Amino acid sequence: MKNQKRIEDYGHRIGNLERGVRNSITDVEGVLVGHVTLNDGPVKTGVTAIIPSTGNLFKEKLICASHVINGFGKSVGMMQIDELGTLETPIVLTNTLSVGTGIDGILDYMLPENPEIGTSTGTVNSVVCECNDGFLNDIRGRHVERGHVLEALSLAGADFMEGAIGAGTGMSCYQLKGGIGTASRIVKIEDSVFTLGALVLSNFGRTKDFTLNGDPIGLRIHREMEMKEVPKEILDERDKGSIIVILATDMPLSSRQLKRVAKRSVNGIARTGSFTGNGSGEVVIAFSTANRISHFEKRASVEISILNENVIDGAFMAVTEAVEEAVLNSMVCADVTEGREGNRRNSLKEYL
Amino acid sequence: MKNQKRIEDYGHRIGNLERGVRNSITDVEGVLVGHVTLNDGPVKTGVTAIIPSTGNLFKEKLICASHVINGFGKSVGMMQIDELGTLETPIVLTNTLSVGTGIDGILDYMLPENPEIGTSTGTVNSVVCECNDGFLNDIRGRHVERGHVLEALSLAGADFMEGAIGAGTGMSCYQLKGGIGTASRIVKIEDSVFTLGALVLSNFGRTKDFTLNGDPIGLRIHREMEMKEVPKEILDERDKGSIIVILATDMPLSSRQLKRVAKRSVNGIARTGSFTGNGSGEVVIAFSTANRISHFEKRASVEISILNENVIDGAFMAVTEAVEEAVLNSMVCADVTEGREGNRRNSLKEYL
Amino acid sequence: MKNQKRIEDYGHRIGNLERGVRNSITDVEGVLVGHVTLNDGPVKTGVTAIIPSTGNLFKEKLICASHVINGFGKSVGMMQIDELGTLETPIVLTNTLSVGTGIDGILDYMLPENPEIGTSTGTVNSVVCECNDGFLNDIRGRHVERGHVLEALSLAGADFMEGAIGAGTGMSCYQLKGGIGTASRIVKIEDSVFTLGALVLSNFGRTKDFTLNGDPIGLRIHREMEMKEVPKEILDERDKGSIIVILATDMPLSSRQLKRVAKRSVNGIARTGSFTGNGSGEVVIAFSTANRISHFEKRASVEISILNENVIDGAFMAVTEAVEEAVLNSMVCADVTEGREGNRRNSLKEYL
Amino acid sequence: MKNQKRIEDYGHRIGNLERGVRNSITDVEGVLVGHVTLNDGPVKTGVTAIIPSTGNLFKEKLICASHVINGFGKSVGMMQIDELGTLETPIVLTNTLSVGTGIDGILDYMLPENPEIGTSTGTVNSVVCECNDGFLNDIRGRHVERGHVLEALSLAGADFMEGAIGAGTGMSCYQLKGGIGTASRIVKIEDSVFTLGALVLSNFGRTKDFTLNGDPIGLRIHREMEMKEVPKEILDERDKGSIIVILATDMPLSSRQLKRVAKRSVNGIARTGSFTGNGSGEVVIAFSTANRISHFEKRASVEISILNENVIDGAFMAVTEAVEEAVLNSMVCADVTEGREGNRRNSLKEYL
Repeated sequence: MKNQKRIEDYGHRIGNLERGVRNSITDVEGVLVGHVTLNDGPVKTGVTAIIPSTGNLFKEKLICASHVINGFGKSVGMMQIDELGTLETPIVLTNTLSVGTGIDGILDYMLPENPEIGTSTGTVNSVVCECNDGFLNDIRGRHVERGHVLEALSLAGADFMEGAIGAGTGMSCYQLKGGIGTASRIVKIEDSVFTLGALVLSNFGRTKDFTLNGDPIGLRIHREMEMKEVPKEILDERDKGSIIVILATDMPLSSRQLKRVAKRSVNGIARTGSFTGNGSGEVVIAFSTANRISHFEKRASVEISILNENVIDGAFMAVTEAVEEAVLNSMVCADVTEGREGNRRNSLKEYL
Repeated sequence: MKNQKRIEDYGHRIGNLERGVRNSITDVEGVLVGHVTLNDGPVKTGVTAIIPSTGNLFKEKLICASHVINGFGKSVGMMQIDELGTLETPIVLTNTLSVGTGIDGILDYMLPENPEIGTSTGTVNSVVCECNDGFLNDIRGRHVERGHVLEALSLAGADFMEGAIGAGTGMSCYQLKGGIGTASRIVKIEDSVFTLGALVLSNFGRTKDFTLNGDPIGLRIHREMEMKEVPKEILDERDKGSIIVILATDMPLSSRQLKRVAKRSVNGIARTGSFTGNGSGEVVIAFSTANRISHFEKRASVEISILNENVIDGAFMAVTEAVEEAVLNSMVCADVTEGREGNRRNSLKEYL
Repeated sequence: MKNQKRIEDYGHRIGNLERGVRNSITDVEGVLVGHVTLNDGPVKTGVTAIIPSTGNLFKEKLICASHVINGFGKSVGMMQIDELGTLETPIVLTNTLSVGTGIDGILDYMLPENPEIGTSTGTVNSVVCECNDGFLNDIRGRHVERGHVLEALSLAGADFMEGAIGAGTGMSCYQLKGGIGTASRIVKIEDSVFTLGALVLSNFGRTKDFTLNGDPIGLRIHREMEMKEVPKEILDERDKGSIIVILATDMPLSSRQLKRVAKRSVNGIARTGSFTGNGSGEVVIAFSTANRISHFEKRASVEISILNENVIDGAFMAVTEAVEEAVLNSMVCADVTEGREGNRRNSLKEYL
Repeated sequence: MKNQKRIEDYGHRIGNLERGVRNSITDVEGVLVGHVTLNDGPVKTGVTAIIPSTGNLFKEKLICASHVINGFGKSVGMMQIDELGTLETPIVLTNTLSVGTGIDGILDYMLPENPEIGTSTGTVNSVVCECNDGFLNDIRGRHVERGHVLEALSLAGADFMEGAIGAGTGMSCYQLKGGIGTASRIVKIEDSVFTLGALVLSNFGRTKDFTLNGDPIGLRIHREMEMKEVPKEILDERDKGSIIVILATDMPLSSRQLKRVAKRSVNGIARTGSFTGNGSGEVVIAFSTANRISHFEKRASVEISILNENVIDGAFMAVTEAVEEAVLNSMVCADVTEGREGNRRNSLKEYL
C-alpha cells in the first residue's frame, strides 16, 4: 500500500472475489500493522507487529487458531492458542534468531498495561513468528532489540508498506526478494458482509517453481538467471525458508472453524508454485474479531456467535485467494536487495 | 443399575463430587442405553447402543469431540467428529470384527428416518467403537448382525444393566471380567447445576496392576491366581484389549472444550492402575446436549452457549471421578464368565 | 492405462520429473490394483482394491502414514496407522455407505489366510476409504457386497483402467466425470533411483475452479454449461465430494517421513484449482515397500532404513506432481456418465 | 541426590521395576543436569539445563518427540521436534516470563560452537520449557539472564540436587513446595538391558487431591492447613501451574515410539492425584540416545535401530513409575520456602 505498485497494478487479478477497500489485512476493522526496519550493510532484518484489535487484548481476548503446514520452524505461542482457542497479545514477526527478543518485547508491552499478570492472575502467551533471513541478513548478529518490538507496535496503522520492510527486510521468496505482503477478500453470506484479510511474511521457494496466476514464469526467470551467470550454488540452494500467514476476519468463527480456514492457506501458497519444501517452516495464525472472551469472566457460560458451517466455503475461497495475492504482493513490492557477503535478491518487478 | 450391586454398595466411595440420581450416563437428560447380548457357548459378544439425545440427531446435531488415548484400535467416526465438532447418529459399541456390521446397522436406523441422506443432502457419519473380546468370544465367527444394532437401539432406556452385558458380554478388565460400567457426577458452577456422565466398555489391563480406590488389590489377586494355578501363559498374557469411554453432559461445552474434558478420562483410567498398554485401543467420545446444530441451517451465523473456561475444572474433576467409578462398576457388576476353549474370567466380586 | 488416452496424450506434461514405466502407482514394485464395477441404470458404483505389496501383509507389515486434509468423510483405519505406523491389509476404495461392507470384505480376505487373528494374536486393521457418489449413484441402495471386495482383490494387476471404473464409477470431479486416476514419478538421490506413485479417487470441486496445468479452463467450461442450460441448481451445487489419495513408494521412509510426504498431496490437488471445500472429505494414505515389520518379531530391536531428511524434497516434488497428474487422468479417462434420476456428468475429454 | 533424603528413603517404594544406579535421569549414559538458583527475598527462580548427550548435538542430533498433555503453557521448540523428530540443543527449564531469555541463552551456547548456523546452513531449534513460579517468585521482575543459562550448562553433571533448586526454586506442587525431581527405571527385553529416566519440574495441583503411593494424604494435609488457618483464598486458589516432564532413554525408539512413551507420563502424574487442571501447562519431551542423526548427512538413506513394538510395554511401565516417583522426589526434597509478599509453601517432609 502507501502508493506501492501491487500485483493487480500489473494487471494480474487473482481470483474472483471482491477485495476490501485497501486490499489489506487492515480492511478488517481494528487490525493495525507496524514495521521497524533494520537496513544497514549486512544488517537486513526488522520487526513487523500486528495489533489484532482495539482494546485490552489480555482482558478481552479474541478467538484464534493456528495451523502448522510444515513444522521446520521456531515460531512460538501456537500451543496455547490450540488449547484455549484465544489470542491475548499482538503478533510479532521477525527473524529466526530474534524470537526470544520478540517474546521479551511483547512482555515489555503487555506487563505495564496488565499489572495482574504474574501477580493475581496467570502469565501471558506471546505469539512470535519467524522466518530465516540469513541469506541476506547477518542473522547471527542478532540485531533486533526489545525496543524495536515496542517501536513497531507504536507505529502500527491501517496503511502500511509491503515488500522489503519490517520483518520482511531480508526475506527471499522463490529466490527473488520477498517479505511482507497483504490482500483481502469480501465474503457475502445471506445479508451479511464479512471481510477476511491475509498478511504474509514470505521466505520460501525456488525460482523455477514460481507460478504467477497460472503462468510458470519462474522457469523463464530461472533460465535468464542461468544466462546471467548467477552462481550455480545459489540457483541450486535448498529451501531454508519459511512462510508465515496471519489471517484476520470479522466473521464469527469458532477456533475449530478458524483452524479449518487456516488450513486452506496452503492452497494459496501452492498456487504460486510451492511444493512445501522440507526446510520451509510454514505456520498460520487465524483470528476473528467477532467475539471477545473476557479474562475475568464470572458467569458460568457465555454466548458466542459462530458461522453456519454450511456456508463456510466463502471463507475457504477467500483465504485461498487472499494468501495467493499476498505472496505475490510481498514479491512485487520488494526492491532488489543486496545483503551480507554480496548476497543479492532480484525483484520480481524486473521480470514483469 | 437395575438393582445390581455396584462399587459404592461395597463401601467404596470414588472421589468427592456428588453423584447423579442413577449415578449413570443416563442422568444426563435424554441419554438412553440399550443392549443386545449374544451369550451361547463360545459366543460371548453383543451390542450396546447409546442414544445421545431425543429428536432427530441428523437434523439437529449435538456438539461433540473425540480423543484417542491409544490408537491401537478400529473404532470409526472420529475423523468427522474432529473436523466438524458434531455427532449426528447414536453411538454403537461392539466387538472389533463387527465394526462393519455396526456401521451398517446404524445406516439401517438412520436412512429410513432421513430420506434426504444420499439424495438431496450428503451422507451420514456412523460412530462405532469396539474392543476385542476374542479371549472369551469366538470373535472370528462374527456373530453380530445388523438387526442386533436396531434391536439394541429399540431397547434403549434410562435404566440399564452393567457388567457382562451387551457389547461387554465377552470383555475382560485387568484379566478379570469387565464390560459395561457407568457413573455420573454433578458439577455446580455459580447458580447452575450440570451433570456429566461416563459409560465405559472396559477390556484392558493386567491383574497385578489393578488398584481399587488407591488399594493395590490386584497384586493380591494375582498372587491368589498363581496359587490357584491359573496357567502362566494366561497370567502373563499381553494386553490386547481396549477401553471405550463415552462422556455425556448438559454443560454447554464447545467441541474444543469437550476435547479437553475427554482428555481427562485417562486420569480416571490411570487411577485404576493402568499404564496404557501397547495393545489397548483407548478412545473417548464426548458430547454435550446443551446446543443443537441444525443440518439445514439457513442463517449466516448462530449463537451457541459455551462454558466459561475459568471454571472448567469442575468438568475435569467430574470426568476423572466418573471414569474411575465406571471402570470399577464394569468389573464388579460382571459375573464370572467362561467362554471359548475354556477361557475364563473371574469376577472382581469374588475378591471383595 | 490399458491404452486409455491420458492427460499427457493430450499434450499436457505435468511437472518436470521423470515418470515411471506405466506412469502409475503400480510402477512401485509389488503394488497391484483391481476393480469391480457396478454399472446398471441408477447403480453407478463399485470397489477398487490396492494390494500394497507381495507376501502376507499381516505377518510382514509395511510402514505407513495417513493424513487428513479435510475430515468431512467416513474413511476408516487411519487411527491405527497413525499410532503404529504400519499397514497390514490391502486398501479398499468404495462409496460412503459401503464402508461397513468394505471392512467386512477385507476381513473375509484376511481371516482365512491368518488363523491367528482373533485367536492367538490380536485383530486386524482394515483400511477402507470412500467418496460419496450419490449424485450419479443410488447410494442408498447399498449395492456393494462383500464378495465384490474379494473379487476386486482377485482381479488386481499392474495394468488397470482409470476413470469411471471400480470405486470411480459414479464419482464426479469439478462437476465433470471423475473417478480413478494414477501417475508416478522417479526420484534420484545420489546413486539411488526410487519410484513414487499416486492413485486418486476423485470426487470434488466446482467446474469454475478447475485449472488444467495452469490454464483456468474451468471458467470456460462453466460458461459453456450455462449456455447449454445446465440447470442452475446443478451448476451452483455445493461440494459434497471427497478425494482419496493413495501414495506408494519404494523409498525407505519412516512413518513420520511418510506423513510429511502425504501432507504435500494437497499441493497437487490445489494446482487443479481446488480450495478444499467444506463438504469434501480428503484423506491420504502413504506407504513404503522398503521395510517390512514382522508381526511376530521376537528380537528386542530391529534395523530399518530411513531416508536422509536433507534430500526429502525429491519426494515432496514427486508427490505434488503425481497427485496433480493423477487427478487429471481420473477426469480425462472417464466417459460421460448418466446416472440416477437423469443426473449426468460430462467428460473432460469433450472440452480438450 | 547428593545425599538428599528422597521418597524411597521415607519407605515408599513406587512401582515394581528396578531402579538405575542413581535413580535419576542421569542414569542414561551421557545425560547431565545443571542448575542456577536465584534465591534472594522475593526472587525465587532459576534455570535448570539438561544436556541430553555428549558430542555436538547440532551436528549429531538425537531422535526426539514431544507430547502436550495440557497446552495452557508457553514452552517452545516442540513444533520442530514433532516435524523432524530430532533434538539439536540442550533443554532449558525456567520460569514462564523467562522463556525468551532461555532461547537467547541457548543461542549463546550453540552459535559459537557451530559457525555454520545462519551462514552456510539453517538455524537452530532451542527447546525451553517453563512453569509459572509467580506465587513465590517476583516473576514480573524477569530476573533470569542469558548468562544464567550458560552457567547452568557449564555446571551440568550426573549428580545434581532436587527440590527447590534451579528452575524449581519457586515452584509449587499440590500447594506444597515443588520443583525438580528425578527417577529412573531399568527395562529388560530379551538379553538387552535399557534405562529410562524422568526429570520433572513440578508446579501443579491442589493439596486435597494429593495421593502418595495410593494414600490420599492430601486430604489430611488440607484439613491440617485449614486448622492452622491458612487463608481460604490460598487453599482455594485455582491451578495456575504446570508440569514439565523430560524423558531420556537409551532404548532405540523412533520419534513415533518416543511420542507413545511420552503420552504415558500422564499416568504417573495421575497416580499422584492430579485431574490435569485447566491452568496447568503440561508438556513432555522424550529423547533417545541410541541413534544419532547427522546434520550434514550425505548418503541417500541411513539405518536406524528401533524397538520391537511388541515389547514396548516395558517402556510404558517404566515411564509411568519414573514420572510418579520424580514428582514425589520433587516435593520431598524441597524445603519450606517463603517468597514474595509473604507467600509460603510448606514442604511435604513436614507431613511424613
